[in-house]
Amino acid sequence: MRPCTIGLDYGTNSVRALLVDAASGEPLGTSVFDYPHGDAGILLDAADPNVARQHPQDYLDGLIAVTRGAMDQARQHGIGRDDIIGIGVDTTGSTPIPLDATGTPLAMTDAFSGNLAAMAWLWKDHTAHAEATEITAHAADMRPQYLEKCGGTYSSEWFWAKLLRCHRIAPDVFAAAATWVEHADWIPAILTGTTDPNAIKRCICAAGHKAMFHADWDGYPDESFLAVLDPALVALRQSLPDTAVNISDTVGTLTADWAEKLGLKPGIPIAGGAFDAHLGAVGSGIQPGTLVKIIGTSTCDMAVAPLDADLPDIPGLCGIAQESILPGHFGLEAGQSAVGDIFNWFVNRLQPGGAENGSHEALTREAETLKPGQSGLLALDWHNGNRTVLVDQRLTGAMLGMSLHTSPAEMYRALVEATAFGARIIVEHMESYGVNIDRVINCGGISAKNPLVMQIYADVLNRPLDISRSDQTCALGAAMAGAVVAGADAGGHDDFAAAAAAMTGVLEIAFHPIPENAAVYERLFELYRRLHDIFGTRDYAENQFDVMKDLLAIRDETRGS
Amino acid sequence: MRPCTIGLDYGTNSVRALLVDAASGEPLGTSVFDYPHGDAGILLDAADPNVARQHPQDYLDGLIAVTRGAMDQARQHGIGRDDIIGIGVDTTGSTPIPLDATGTPLAMTDAFSGNLAAMAWLWKDHTAHAEATEITAHAADMRPQYLEKCGGTYSSEWFWAKLLRCHRIAPDVFAAAATWVEHADWIPAILTGTTDPNAIKRCICAAGHKAMFHADWDGYPDESFLAVLDPALVALRQSLPDTAVNISDTVGTLTADWAEKLGLKPGIPIAGGAFDAHLGAVGSGIQPGTLVKIIGTSTCDMAVAPLDADLPDIPGLCGIAQESILPGHFGLEAGQSAVGDIFNWFVNRLQPGGAENGSHEALTREAETLKPGQSGLLALDWHNGNRTVLVDQRLTGAMLGMSLHTSPAEMYRALVEATAFGARIIVEHMESYGVNIDRVINCGGISAKNPLVMQIYADVLNRPLDISRSDQTCALGAAMAGAVVAGADAGGHDDFAAAAAAMTGVLEIAFHPIPENAAVYERLFELYRRLHDIFGTRDYAENQFDVMKDLLAIRDETRGS
Repeated sequence: MRPCTIGLDYGTNSVRALLVDAASGEPLGTSVFDYPHGDAGILLDAADPNVARQHPQDYLDGLIAVTRGAMDQARQHGIGRDDIIGIGVDTTGSTPIPLDATGTPLAMTDAFSGNLAAMAWLWKDHTAHAEATEITAHAADMRPQYLEKCGGTYSSEWFWAKLLRCHRIAPDVFAAAATWVEHADWIPAILTGTTDPNAIKRCICAAGHKAMFHADWDGYPDESFLAVLDPALVALRQSLPDTAVNISDTVGTLTADWAEKLGLKPGIPIAGGAFDAHLGAVGSGIQPGTLVKIIGTSTCDMAVAPLDADLPDIPGLCGIAQESILPGHFGLEAGQSAVGDIFNWFVNRLQPGGAENGSHEALTREAETLKPGQSGLLALDWHNGNRTVLVDQRLTGAMLGMSLHTSPAEMYRALVEATAFGARIIVEHMESYGVNIDRVINCGGISAKNPLVMQIYADVLNRPLDISRSDQTCALGAAMAGAVVAGADAGGHDDFAAAAAAMTGVLEIAFHPIPENAAVYERLFELYRRLHDIFGTRDYAENQFDVMKDLLAIRDETRGS
Repeated sequence: MRPCTIGLDYGTNSVRALLVDAASGEPLGTSVFDYPHGDAGILLDAADPNVARQHPQDYLDGLIAVTRGAMDQARQHGIGRDDIIGIGVDTTGSTPIPLDATGTPLAMTDAFSGNLAAMAWLWKDHTAHAEATEITAHAADMRPQYLEKCGGTYSSEWFWAKLLRCHRIAPDVFAAAATWVEHADWIPAILTGTTDPNAIKRCICAAGHKAMFHADWDGYPDESFLAVLDPALVALRQSLPDTAVNISDTVGTLTADWAEKLGLKPGIPIAGGAFDAHLGAVGSGIQPGTLVKIIGTSTCDMAVAPLDADLPDIPGLCGIAQESILPGHFGLEAGQSAVGDIFNWFVNRLQPGGAENGSHEALTREAETLKPGQSGLLALDWHNGNRTVLVDQRLTGAMLGMSLHTSPAEMYRALVEATAFGARIIVEHMESYGVNIDRVINCGGISAKNPLVMQIYADVLNRPLDISRSDQTCALGAAMAGAVVAGADAGGHDDFAAAAAAMTGVLEIAFHPIPENAAVYERLFELYRRLHDIFGTRDYAENQFDVMKDLLAIRDETRGS
């Protein structure tokens, strides 16, 4: 027997299974399933660009496909069903799904088939911006402590805002829901046969970061608070438990039915779920002092601090929640609402460069030949709003400095740089609140595949950047959770420190800042910060006459003209 | 005999001849010659995007080609060489050319063949921005009256800035120049056989608007002023005359040599030159109260006022010069540094829309389906700097409001709207200084070919827009000058009022503002003005937090969501 675990990693467009050796973290099988519904798995509404939903059926179809796919590969390494000792799960979030009294997603019932409001409300659905503003104002007035733990502003991406929005625009859907469950909690519930809506275990990661759950006030927001927002939320609140699980908790064991469907052994432990980013941080070997950046369509920037640390509330973070990343630690979550999504917008939606020169590869090749500052361009990376530190979905992208000679590659590079400046805002913000960051480990698709982006990030952040050894850190983190709930006796690990030591690492290749680039970016960052503050905050009022001048001066100096 | 005249119209990329019936303005022959040198006729420098030069040989080769081409066509109407009674000329400007002592452009001598500094310095060459700033500061200090007539700021596009720049970067070229001549003065000199550099007649249009020439101080700037700028300019100043001609002046008659080359009759009168825009205004029938907008790669916005009118100095205009447009009137010149050039940048340089959906036609078709405000976008049209009212080449383009769904057509429309907002800034500025504008006549390529642009302009300006009957108004204006210098006795006209009545008119189709569009643009224009002021002026300092919010609010209202 060779003890292995499976991490199930539900992303924005697809689900992946990663099967690893629990002793070494070595990947032995992996499989990906693209969600078939909608546009790359996302159900859109042409009339409202804020809508982003998913069909829960895709989650189940994908679950079977990727688990069997990973097992098929692992079989070539001699791995069989009896070698799998545990399963962990991560998903996007906040992605709440309305369930009926039998635990069935409303979207999978005849009554609500095809109803967008009955689908999973994907993390990047921003229809609830008005409700988020309302919740923020209400909390500021009645329960300011609720806001302190989620960065001072409740987001349209989060649980209560989405539920409130649903009640307003689709009251029939809301009324039919016995509960709403985060995608991260629904998959463990499915695997463990938990059909009673009131019995579903809720993970601290989703509850703490997105649903105002905190031990200081006995869990979720109290009923009197919710009643003022909307009395309908009170009944919903009663379907939620008073406690939450973390990723070292076993929420149950694999049912015979699902063991059969997946080709696994029944009875193996299923770990508490978590969001992809949080388990990505775990899969990157997060520990106090280490910032893990997961750079993909968006970013998550994660840090941890021991539970006994004297940590202040930090405004603008998506939240600080106990044990949301690592058991025994505070989890700090920040992030950028769009990174790869911005590059993808430029390439796939704007489609620059005519027929041949507009691919990511072609634009990257040309952008690599440019020096920092040479284009005269400066962009704001708010095409999908700003998650940290402004917590404002009603911000938009911007670009300054275009001339009649500006090229697609220059604009592409400016967008990359904008996301790097956005990353630096977050790092400086955390540090300014006393969070020690002595190392940055990067993971996610962009960190593994795009050296230009990583070099620009190293230059802009002006610090070395490590790259996680695994290119599937979220799934690896989930698999680590599977190993921890299995325990050392079964061939897993007794805690995450042991799992990290055995199963994680970084690549030998790291990115180091180039001093002359860092010097130019220092100047550009100050201009970025000014645009950031004048368009993104309420209190900064200075004339910006010199922004375009400075960009041109930097451009001319860089070109040597 | 059927009296006809020829207008020679030198544009940015090509030269056109228009042969018209002097009694009716009816076009009887036209021909275009694309300048063969450089990139679409423009010599560029990969190291410096500010460089834009032209080869004078192209002007001569084009002169022969288009005149013969127009005559060939007119021959089908029974027109022969003896029917041509006069010639007028317009060119771009300020486009100064260095000449040697024999009147030969340095670029056409062996010593300076291929030397960029010896070429014609095309109007949109912006290398002299530092020199323009220096001249402005020096004039403000020593001769403030010089600035009052050219809008308060001397531009890098203009005569003295370019000469000073040449002396600094290519002193050998400057030293070899016996004089510098505007393109608009060089062509009449060529046609009339004026080879003595000191004998070349200078038109008030170029001298007055671009070279600080004014009757109040006996012509060009005085030597003591120039000596402080650079002693080398003093000798150059001595090559310039003390008087200037207007378009009703005959600068000479066609030489036998050039009559032979062009297939015309020697001895016919050649009118004083002028800039293309000024003769475009004439060809559109300009008179007091009428704003003529020539909308092409850039715009010129032209107005006139009787010489006895009580006209204040107007800061930010490219200038107010006596008789620069119509004899007997002040000529007011304003303009936008780039309009069609911005749309062309988007289509040809950015090349959006993949292989098939990025043409002007395709983008226009899709942009036509959008409502004002629907995209959430707002742009600044400063990709080539800002000519009026900011007079600042060191400004750049900008766009705000991009989301991950923003489409090429939305961006294209936002760029069109930005140029319309820029146009409105100019109109409101003129009106605020007491210039009466009760009618707007548009001409130029875009006005004739792009109903979407014209409708947006009508909606943004919130007033009806007429379109000049001729689609070659600059050349028609030049042909009218040819008719006036020929005089009524020869079958031409005795003055421009008579020429305009006989030879100009507007199309039956006009563009009228759509009230609901105008209402949305009213709101967007206020946001445009705020961005205009905070990035383009020194004194406006207010927080801009609500710009993106307002754009999204307008977007949501427009979409009905």
